[in-house]
Amino acid sequence: MGDHRDFYRGRRVMVTGGLGFIGSNLCRTLADLGAQVLAVDSLLPDYGGNPFNLAGYEDKVRINVADVRGHAMKHLVRGQEVLFNLAGQVSHMDSMTDPFTDLEINCTSQLWILEALRQFNADCKVVYAGTRQIYGKPRYLPVDEQHLLNPTDVNGINKISGEFYHLVYNSVHGIRACSLRLTNTYGPRQLIRHNRQGFIGWFMKQVVLGEQIQIYGDGAQRRDFDYVDDTVDAFLRAGAMEQADGEVFNLGGDAPVSLRDLTELMIELAGRGSYRLIPFPEERKKIDIGDFYADTSKIKAALGWQPVTKLRDGLARTIAYYDAHKEHYL
Amino acid sequence: MGDHRDFYRGRRVMVTGGLGFIGSNLCRTLADLGAQVLAVDSLLPDYGGNPFNLAGYEDKVRINVADVRGHAMKHLVRGQEVLFNLAGQVSHMDSMTDPFTDLEINCTSQLWILEALRQFNADCKVVYAGTRQIYGKPRYLPVDEQHLLNPTDVNGINKISGEFYHLVYNSVHGIRACSLRLTNTYGPRQLIRHNRQGFIGWFMKQVVLGEQIQIYGDGAQRRDFDYVDDTVDAFLRAGAMEQADGEVFNLGGDAPVSLRDLTELMIELAGRGSYRLIPFPEERKKIDIGDFYADTSKIKAALGWQPVTKLRDGLARTIAYYDAHKEHYL
Repeated sequence: MGDHRDFYRGRRVMVTGGLGFIGSNLCRTLADLGAQVLAVDSLLPDYGGNPFNLAGYEDKVRINVADVRGHAMKHLVRGQEVLFNLAGQVSHMDSMTDPFTDLEINCTSQLWILEALRQFNADCKVVYAGTRQIYGKPRYLPVDEQHLLNPTDVNGINKISGEFYHLVYNSVHGIRACSLRLTNTYGPRQLIRHNRQGFIGWFMKQVVLGEQIQIYGDGAQRRDFDYVDDTVDAFLRAGAMEQADGEVFNLGGDAPVSLRDLTELMIELAGRGSYRLIPFPEERKKIDIGDFYADTSKIKAALGWQPVTKLRDGLARTIAYYDAHKEHYL
Repeated sequence: MGDHRDFYRGRRVMVTGGLGFIGSNLCRTLADLGAQVLAVDSLLPDYGGNPFNLAGYEDKVRINVADVRGHAMKHLVRGQEVLFNLAGQVSHMDSMTDPFTDLEINCTSQLWILEALRQFNADCKVVYAGTRQIYGKPRYLPVDEQHLLNPTDVNGINKISGEFYHLVYNSVHGIRACSLRLTNTYGPRQLIRHNRQGFIGWFMKQVVLGEQIQIYGDGAQRRDFDYVDDTVDAFLRAGAMEQADGEVFNLGGDAPVSLRDLTELMIELAGRGSYRLIPFPEERKKIDIGDFYADTSKIKAALGWQPVTKLRDGLARTIAYYDAHKEHYL
């Protein structure tokens, strides 16, 4: 057990989006490490928050249902030592049909959180869940943190703002903040009910139910994938290590995989399901970014992080999880 | 008279922020070129909108006072051929003390405008007033459009969003849009009453009144300056030329000038005023960016634009303007 995990014993730690996919996995690990965990979640419909995600941890994690837009945050942040800020709207499609709501959830809410910290707990450190989405269609591969930002949808734009707000509150107001630019994350407790939060949860649902997956285009687009335990480890490192302050870091998998290879592996591991290739729907083609995989050398050098879970192992665990608990996710 | 000026004869053109500094100069030029001009302005206090800016043009420019956040835009955009989108909040300091208002003015309002176009007039072309502020402290000089975005304050962040919204509505919704990243612009009709919208208007006021200017630090920071007529010409080119669609362009002066040299030139031309150097206030030092000047080769190559007004001539004209009309700006 590394220092960055020992750091959390007895610490007061808050997780926004704590009933969501990554947030709940983070809460569970933090509780296991002996932290006093406060999970804050709005439980807005369709956003991924799911009370079952903290099943078995009801006595170890304090749950506070609240929208982060509002004065509740001014009370909740007090006394916290680390805030993992994972609240957000992650649907690219929804951001194009309802850009105002995406703005509210991904920008206005971030200002509420940061203003609460500035006014009531400027000593708290904050780790923001950013996204590789902000790079848009890569100009070169792998994509490092110097790559131009070129978002292809409103969600990507608003996630840029959310990240920059953190960096400016770090530099101007002295609130220690950093951002992890997440790639495709998969694993237990992800929303799989609808397909508006990315393809991997949706594919997982179809495999678990033995349905036929539809892949847009030829499925040759290569992406990198992080198992959620690896993503959680990156958050733990960023929250514990001062080398992270004021910085942004890419996360990424160990090797890019095509969507078709990913799908075939899922089907093989599950022993059920099928797939077929269909033409790209016009509105998705416009915001698709083709191949994407990240250069993760910065976080490896600074925080010692690298993904350790093999895709095959992570997918097998994920399938087993949904086989056991799918009634809570459908 | 070039093609890009002839283009506007008889065109229906709308200018948001049309009673502001650059917006009003643009409206006047457009009216002179024979366009049917609609100036929309919220006239929010302290933002720069000033009815006197269209003095003498009351019969040539239709003025509609309205906040761009709201349903009024859905009616106002109809039938327009070009929308020059200059509405916004430009105070860096205000954005740090009241980030929510800056978000409303610079992000929410832009979505209202773009959604109005998407729903009711997707054939209208839009030119957005961006800012060099989004680059933050330069990593190299001169700064070209490939330079990383690294805003130092909330205003810079929200101006990035405003620009990216336009580019995404261009690529996804087919609304022809582009952005001009303005540098320090000076000239007649600028707000000079307070110092929260940049130093040049504030210095102008003090010179005109024969007061003592305070320069932060040693005044050696070099910046580039555009006389407003040159800036207006860039907007006219961007609005008329299809080479601009989907693009961002730096504006910039012909040669960088230190703040101290600028101040001395203003004092010399006015024949009054003085200056002294004072230490940087802490809250301004944190968001100051040091030297900045832009590489403008992209807009020169694509749209044939370059600044033509000598700093000495532009400043002399500006001083003469405020000497004649200062009672409307104090």
